[in-house]
Amino acid sequence: MGSSLVQSLTSPAETKIVLLILDGLGGLPLEPGGKTELETAHTPNLDALAARSALGLTVPVGPGITPGSGPGHLAIFGYDPVEHEIGRGALEALGVDFDLGPEDVAARGNFCTVDARGAIIDRRAGRIPTEVGRELAGLLRATRLEGADLFVETVKEHRFAFILRGPGLGQALSDSDPYTGGNAPLPVRALEPGSERAAALANQFIGQARRLLADRHPANMVLLRGFARMPRLAGFKELYGLRAAAIAVNGMYRGVARSAGMEVLDVPGTAPQDELAVLEKAWNQYDFFYLHIKKTDTAGEEGDFWRKVRAIEEVDGLVPRLMALRPDVVIVSGDHSSPALMRSHSWHPVPTLLYSGLVCAGGIAEFGERACARGGLGVLPATGVMPLALAHARRLAKYGA
Amino acid sequence: MGSSLVQSLTSPAETKIVLLILDGLGGLPLEPGGKTELETAHTPNLDALAARSALGLTVPVGPGITPGSGPGHLAIFGYDPVEHEIGRGALEALGVDFDLGPEDVAARGNFCTVDARGAIIDRRAGRIPTEVGRELAGLLRATRLEGADLFVETVKEHRFAFILRGPGLGQALSDSDPYTGGNAPLPVRALEPGSERAAALANQFIGQARRLLADRHPANMVLLRGFARMPRLAGFKELYGLRAAAIAVNGMYRGVARSAGMEVLDVPGTAPQDELAVLEKAWNQYDFFYLHIKKTDTAGEEGDFWRKVRAIEEVDGLVPRLMALRPDVVIVSGDHSSPALMRSHSWHPVPTLLYSGLVCAGGIAEFGERACARGGLGVLPATGVMPLALAHARRLAKYGA
Repeated sequence: MGSSLVQSLTSPAETKIVLLILDGLGGLPLEPGGKTELETAHTPNLDALAARSALGLTVPVGPGITPGSGPGHLAIFGYDPVEHEIGRGALEALGVDFDLGPEDVAARGNFCTVDARGAIIDRRAGRIPTEVGRELAGLLRATRLEGADLFVETVKEHRFAFILRGPGLGQALSDSDPYTGGNAPLPVRALEPGSERAAALANQFIGQARRLLADRHPANMVLLRGFARMPRLAGFKELYGLRAAAIAVNGMYRGVARSAGMEVLDVPGTAPQDELAVLEKAWNQYDFFYLHIKKTDTAGEEGDFWRKVRAIEEVDGLVPRLMALRPDVVIVSGDHSSPALMRSHSWHPVPTLLYSGLVCAGGIAEFGERACARGGLGVLPATGVMPLALAHARRLAKYGA
Repeated sequence: MGSSLVQSLTSPAETKIVLLILDGLGGLPLEPGGKTELETAHTPNLDALAARSALGLTVPVGPGITPGSGPGHLAIFGYDPVEHEIGRGALEALGVDFDLGPEDVAARGNFCTVDARGAIIDRRAGRIPTEVGRELAGLLRATRLEGADLFVETVKEHRFAFILRGPGLGQALSDSDPYTGGNAPLPVRALEPGSERAAALANQFIGQARRLLADRHPANMVLLRGFARMPRLAGFKELYGLRAAAIAVNGMYRGVARSAGMEVLDVPGTAPQDELAVLEKAWNQYDFFYLHIKKTDTAGEEGDFWRKVRAIEEVDGLVPRLMALRPDVVIVSGDHSSPALMRSHSWHPVPTLLYSGLVCAGGIAEFGERACARGGLGVLPATGVMPLALAHARRLAKYGA
C-alpha cells in the first residue's frame, strides 16, 4: 500500500493528533529474564493510557534493519524510508544536529594534507584531534561567499559538515575528492543545469580554504563530497491534509520535520516540559503535533540504563497535561530502539501505543515491549502509523464501495 | 508475495474449503472497557471451533484503510485490492446491488438540466427527489438498443447506474459529462479499438434519453461517466485449481465472486439457513464454497449493536450443520469491520478463524477481536487467507527444494 492511496482518501476533520516520539524508546533487559528500560520505568500514566489503547510493535525499515534517526523518522511520518533516502551530505549536517533547511545544500567535508604541488598525500590529514578540527572550522567560517551563507560544523577529528544556504542552489554537484592518492583535489562541477551557482560557491570556498589553511600542515586543504539537500517530500498538508507542527529541540529532528512540511516551532528551553508548554500554547493552531524527546536515545546510546528509565518516567509525568488537552488521537512510540545494553541504535521493533475513542482497546494496562507484543496492532511497519492515526481521527474516507 | 507464486504451487487434492464471510464482522465496544458485538454474542459453536483453530486478525487493504465491500472481498479472495481496482461505473452498479456480469459495462449516471440550446445549466438537475429519479429511470428503461440489454438502476436523487449487457462490449469509453458548465453533453467516444460498439450504444441511449426527458425539466437530460467493467481477474480455477461456488444473496457479492471465476449459485430465500441449504445440496460438486452473510454488516451500518449480535448468533447456530459436512478447511472471517458504534465500515482488523486438522491450534476457546489478537496467525494481510486455506487443504506444493 503506497502513500498515494492514503493521500487520495484524506478528508477534512476537526480532530487533533499527537505523535509523541521518545527517541530510541525500545530497549532490552540487562540480564536474561529481566525487564527492559520501558518495562522497568514506573509509568502509571502511560500504563493507564495503554489500557484504553491499541498496542503493537512497529518495524521502522525492515526486520533486522537498524535505522538511523533519519530513516526512523521518515518511516513513522509515513514515507518509505528506503525510497526516500537522505543523502550523505544532508546526513552529515543532521548528524551534528545542524538545523538543515529545505533549500540548504550540504556536503561531507574532510581536512586533508597536500604537498607543495597541491597533490593529496593524506586524505584524512593524519586524523587531527577534534579540537584542532574545531579551531580550523572556525577559521573557515570566516569565508565570505557572494549571495549565500556558509556553515562549517565540526563532526569529529578531520571531518566537518559544509552547508551552503541561499536561494536557488542545486544539489547535483560532483565531489572534489579524487579518492585516488597523488592527485590534486578536483574542482566541483555542476552535474545538472541549475547547480552551476552552487558549484561556483563550493569552488570559492575551496579556494579560500587553500589560502586560509596554507600554513596549517597537515590540515592544509579540504575535500568535499556527497553534496545533498534534504529529500523533497510531499508535505503533511499535501499528503494528509494536516496543519502539522513539530516540537523538537535538536536540529536533526527539526530538519526532517521541516522537510515533511511541518512548521517547526521554537522551544525556549530543552526539557520535555518546555516542549509540552509549546504544544499547549500552539494547541488551537494545528491539527497534528510531532513532539520529540531526545533524552531516551542519548541515555541508551551511552549505555545508561537507569538514566533512560528516568527519562521515560519524566515523560510519563507529562502525560496528564497532554491528555488534558483532549487530543482525539495520541501515538506514543519511538523512531527506533536504543537498548542501553547495546549502547547504540538497534533493529528491535518499537513499543507503540495508539489511543483514540475508536480503538478496540486490548485492556492491557502496561506500556512495554512484551505488553505491546500481545497487542491488537500486532507487529506492523512504522509506515502504517500515520494511516492508522488518520483513520482513528476520522480523516480517511472509505476506499472503494 | 504475489499470487503468481501461489498459482505456480497449486496442486490437486480431494479436499474441501469453506470460506464463511460475515460481512462487516469486526466491531467495537459501545463503551470503553466493554465488549464488541462478536464478543457479546453467545457463540458456543464458534467458540468450540476456535479452540481447534488458528486465530488471527486480517487487514483487508492496509493499516487505517477502510475498505468498501469490493476491495474487502478482492483481498480475502487473494487479489491485491489496490492493483485490481474496481472502476467507478462498476462500483455504482454493485453499490445498488446490481448483479453485474463479467461482460457488462457500467457507468455512473446523472440526471441534469440543459437549456433550450442543449447547454448544461445544472449537472445535478436540482438534486431531484429519489422518487422522481426512480420514475424517470423507469422511463429510460423502455429504451431499446440494438444487440444489447439495457439496465437503468436508481441510486439516489439525481444519480443512477447505467449498465449495458451484450457480447463484445469494450469499456474504454470517454465520459459524456463535460464537467464545465455552459457546455452541451459530449458524445461518448471509444478510447480504444474494440469499444466502438459500446460507444455507439451509449450514444443511442443518450439520444433516446434526450427525447424521453424533453418535457421533464429540471431532469431533462443525462450525463454518463466512469465507464467500467468488473476487473478481469484470473479465476479461482486458473489461480488455485478450485472448482469454486459462491452462495450470496446480494448482487454486489455475487458480482465480485463471478469476476473471480466462481459459479454463483441460486439461493431460494434470503436467510443464512437458506444459503446453508444450498451449500449442503451442492457439497459434492465443488472444492470451494464462499458463503456470504449480509445481515451483520447491515446491522453494523445501521448502528444496531444488538441486531448485529443476534445475526452472529444466528450464524453460530448453523455451524454444527456446516461441520457435519466434514470440510477440510473452514475460514470464518469478514471482508472488513462495521462497528455499530461507527454506523459504517471501518479499518479495524477483522477477527479470523482458520480451522483444519493441520492447524497449530492455540486452544483459545473464544472467537472475538481480543481473542484473535492473541492468536497464532497474528495480524496478517487478508490476501494471506487463501494461500493459508490452500496449504491447510494440502493444495499447495513445496516451493524450491
